[in-house]
Amino acid sequence: MAVPLIDRDDLDFTLWRVLGAESLTRYPRFAEHDRGTFSQVIETARAIAEDKFRPHAAKSDANEPRIENGKVVLIPEIGEALQAFAEAGFLAAHHDAEIGGLQLPWTIQQAAFAHFKAANTPTVGYAFLTIAAANLIHAHGSAEQKRLWMQPMLDGRTFGTMALSEPHAGSSLSDVRTAARQLDGDRYAIKGSKMWTSAGEHELTRNIVHMTLARIEGAPPGVKGLSLFIVPRYRLDAAGEPTVPNDVTLVGLNHKMGYRGTVNTALNFGDGDDCVGYLVGAPGRGLANMFHMMNEARVGVAFGAIMLAYAGFQESLEYARTRAQGRHPGDKDPTTPQLPLVEHADIRRMLLQQKAVAEGGLMLALDLALRIDRQKQDPDEAVRRHEALLLDFLTPIIKAWYSDRALEANHNAIQILGGYGYTRDYPVERIYRDNRLNPIHEGTNAIQAIDLLGRKAGIAEGAAFRAVVDEIRATLAEAEGKPELDALRRETATGLERLVATTETLLTAAPDIGAIRMLSNAAAYMDMAGLVVFGWVWLRQGLAALAELPQAAAGRPRDFLLGKLQTARYVAAWELPRTAQHAALLGSLDDTLTTMEASWL
Amino acid sequence: MAVPLIDRDDLDFTLWRVLGAESLTRYPRFAEHDRGTFSQVIETARAIAEDKFRPHAAKSDANEPRIENGKVVLIPEIGEALQAFAEAGFLAAHHDAEIGGLQLPWTIQQAAFAHFKAANTPTVGYAFLTIAAANLIHAHGSAEQKRLWMQPMLDGRTFGTMALSEPHAGSSLSDVRTAARQLDGDRYAIKGSKMWTSAGEHELTRNIVHMTLARIEGAPPGVKGLSLFIVPRYRLDAAGEPTVPNDVTLVGLNHKMGYRGTVNTALNFGDGDDCVGYLVGAPGRGLANMFHMMNEARVGVAFGAIMLAYAGFQESLEYARTRAQGRHPGDKDPTTPQLPLVEHADIRRMLLQQKAVAEGGLMLALDLALRIDRQKQDPDEAVRRHEALLLDFLTPIIKAWYSDRALEANHNAIQILGGYGYTRDYPVERIYRDNRLNPIHEGTNAIQAIDLLGRKAGIAEGAAFRAVVDEIRATLAEAEGKPELDALRRETATGLERLVATTETLLTAAPDIGAIRMLSNAAAYMDMAGLVVFGWVWLRQGLAALAELPQAAAGRPRDFLLGKLQTARYVAAWELPRTAQHAALLGSLDDTLTTMEASWL
Repeated sequence: MAVPLIDRDDLDFTLWRVLGAESLTRYPRFAEHDRGTFSQVIETARAIAEDKFRPHAAKSDANEPRIENGKVVLIPEIGEALQAFAEAGFLAAHHDAEIGGLQLPWTIQQAAFAHFKAANTPTVGYAFLTIAAANLIHAHGSAEQKRLWMQPMLDGRTFGTMALSEPHAGSSLSDVRTAARQLDGDRYAIKGSKMWTSAGEHELTRNIVHMTLARIEGAPPGVKGLSLFIVPRYRLDAAGEPTVPNDVTLVGLNHKMGYRGTVNTALNFGDGDDCVGYLVGAPGRGLANMFHMMNEARVGVAFGAIMLAYAGFQESLEYARTRAQGRHPGDKDPTTPQLPLVEHADIRRMLLQQKAVAEGGLMLALDLALRIDRQKQDPDEAVRRHEALLLDFLTPIIKAWYSDRALEANHNAIQILGGYGYTRDYPVERIYRDNRLNPIHEGTNAIQAIDLLGRKAGIAEGAAFRAVVDEIRATLAEAEGKPELDALRRETATGLERLVATTETLLTAAPDIGAIRMLSNAAAYMDMAGLVVFGWVWLRQGLAALAELPQAAAGRPRDFLLGKLQTARYVAAWELPRTAQHAALLGSLDDTLTTMEASWL
Repeated sequence: MAVPLIDRDDLDFTLWRVLGAESLTRYPRFAEHDRGTFSQVIETARAIAEDKFRPHAAKSDANEPRIENGKVVLIPEIGEALQAFAEAGFLAAHHDAEIGGLQLPWTIQQAAFAHFKAANTPTVGYAFLTIAAANLIHAHGSAEQKRLWMQPMLDGRTFGTMALSEPHAGSSLSDVRTAARQLDGDRYAIKGSKMWTSAGEHELTRNIVHMTLARIEGAPPGVKGLSLFIVPRYRLDAAGEPTVPNDVTLVGLNHKMGYRGTVNTALNFGDGDDCVGYLVGAPGRGLANMFHMMNEARVGVAFGAIMLAYAGFQESLEYARTRAQGRHPGDKDPTTPQLPLVEHADIRRMLLQQKAVAEGGLMLALDLALRIDRQKQDPDEAVRRHEALLLDFLTPIIKAWYSDRALEANHNAIQILGGYGYTRDYPVERIYRDNRLNPIHEGTNAIQAIDLLGRKAGIAEGAAFRAVVDEIRATLAEAEGKPELDALRRETATGLERLVATTETLLTAAPDIGAIRMLSNAAAYMDMAGLVVFGWVWLRQGLAALAELPQAAAGRPRDFLLGKLQTARYVAAWELPRTAQHAALLGSLDDTLTTMEASWL
């Protein structure tokens, strides 16, 4: 029997005990829902993920997309899985009922989608890009654009992409060169080359809509000159059908280490001067409008990384329970049976690291989803603002810190399986290769660290940072006097004070030492902030576990809660103390990286 | 132009300035050599590695070994490269002149071989396994076994393997079940299944010799019952030719994440009860005899990992120098040209981490090779014993610590290349996949950590540990009063004192708390010890650089030395402080891992 995609006990515990997600039904938008319908949606997702997504993950990896007769060929299971996804209504799940949606909270949609991420991230990628593209048009497009381009995405007739990067402009979007020349109204002639466009060409749907950054003739250089366009693969004919080729050329496919099922393309727009794009929103607002989506995309990337950690954890836990190998140190009697791997201390360390990242990450990702819901739905403006500030600060952390630690988790999963883990007979090596992408895309982790320290730590006169600090202090206060959480409470409190002092030091020094040096050690700042948040996450898990413990039945219910408390101990002993090192480096304004000359390397 | 496999300045600096390897010519065995002949050998290796090994590394990865008509098919370039390797005399390089060797010091042979590891580890693997197999027969075989089986390996007519693991016994060799029943003299009937045998079947050579662990009928269980056998693919006919099939069956190939050019096999011996093995050395001494070879193999694995770090460093450095992307923080003017990546602080951090591991690791690997030479050649017994003790303690460290850090280095190489680094158009993703094996084989890194703390820290009443501590203290004394190295000297000294105190605490507590708990945090002990050794390595590099600096010409010679000093600063600021965290965890005898119940996971 296959291992569970997500431990049901864990998801229930996180959603209903730690996060209290049922509270969402108080908001009028979700009033038709209750915990029963929420659970039903999640169960549907689990079933489709297990039946339609997981079974072809290995096959899809082994048979990567290729071009045949000018067309991109994917294994058929990808299309079948996505059809099941669309038929379940998941492409429109969070939208209004009146446009075919389920008016599902983002939180519940994300809890459902987590199963697809764990089952087969590359296949579900087509759907997630489509949802993101539809969201962009929903937020910034005209009524006609919504009707013509968004509506077909909600039922899966058209898929979407993000066409941002160019061959010379990967991280540096301010250098995008793709040009747009107005034809009439919102119609522009588009010309340029795009790189790294995922799902950029395929035959899964009749049409593909590329949400494209381009520069209108005469627009200023830099990000302020960028506008957002709908560039379809096919334009619509008089009958409204996508039959008119739109001069979008597939230049080639990128062949990746992992994540292979998601075809990744280099595209040319307007080689034959016949590519039309439709301006979305105001000219010059392209990147600004896109950033709204990008923040969700960053949490999405992190969530994907976390669910790969989760999948690797489940696989390696199952292996560690069933594979007998070796004996305890000191036990030299070779006639005794070998022990299951899980009995070895270092295997437990690697399982606990995975559990901490996977379950803690799942909780944080859903916590952020809940804040997105509250930020949009809460009647109290102070709540909305508070949640927005928290999201600002926590988004780069979940993206960078969790994608790094999730990859470490997958490393540990392989290590537990030993030689078998290095083979393609077990899924952990594929999971690891898939996950290696996540520290790179949607803004490299270095860029996230600069965003965190250079922007988020200081914005609104430090209000985002203070909002996070206040939340963590509230949790620390709650954990007072609970001996089971004492170690983690102390380490988190110490880490938090270090983070506060370091942030103060750096922001105060910035005018003197300049932005380059102030930001040069941002990677250390990211790890410190990530660790403090990690401590906070596990304190909340621990508090919820303690609250449940007295009434928990012996056996699995009780063991589950004790596992949470032990993971909190692991986080305190093995992870949090790293903040000391970062505080010293950052506090001293260490200039090793900035005094380095390139010629010395 | 391709990047250098190894920076010549760096190898020269390490061999002649830091290690003073010329001193080897004092030993009678190497008296025929001088620095000129040493350099010639190294240059020959470099040329063959560049011309014959590097060019097919990507092709070999993309076309992994397969079975066709019952035979293993490899791309032809593998055989051609290995032929060039054999023709240069490298298979016998360290052996006596009288058996066709060059009487080359191990140090110089390793410096030469480093180029093959950087160029194409999977292809050179066939040669290294053959050298190791020949060494085993050389050390423990009879005169006839040497003539019949070793000699053909020295000139490349026969290749060798290590057939140790079995499907149910990967790490736990004491559970090996392959059986041996004496026929007559040294001839035994062998029966059993072997797993993970690299180079276990191919058509590169007329014969293959499997150095096999098996249990003679009636031998005790556990490692003491294991004996070592030569099990050839073909037995020799009356004319001494390998024409008689020896009932060795290829069961299947393992399909790996990387390291694909080295075919990895599952083999059955004696399915038809006609498999003959020849006992090497005394019955029951199999594992003991093998461990001699295994220590060299462990350093070899580490050296391979380090050279993959070196290769990734060279590739990503070249990319960082030539790829323009982004601007400095605070520079908002999009009309200025983009900066080369190397100008960004976090890119420098990732380059310095790679440089520290790659160049420091190369030095440590050659330092250990030099100690192997001295241990064998030095007339002074005290020197021989001292070097043996150092090798004992440092072997698990170089294997585990450097293979972990080398993988981190390759992670950073990919990160520097961004999206391109994730594609198969650049070598860094392949290098990373190849390197993922190294923390697993030749004893997982967890096993190395247990070996270090459980055996090496205490053996000979702590003499091995004290020998290392004394060496490091001597280097610390040398670094006194040198401001350029002050930060690293202080951090290394602090780390060393923590290591000494922690070792004392653990060994003292062991009788009370028991071996299981004492060893449960061995991973933290390994990182602490590895860091201290890392500091020591970079102090020695720094001292040599300082000695050279006054007479170094401006430009590259001077820049090279300044780069060494800046890397020492990086190691002090970013790496060494981690020892504090480990000292606290280990010193408190933290029992998180041992109080965990498996059912809580």
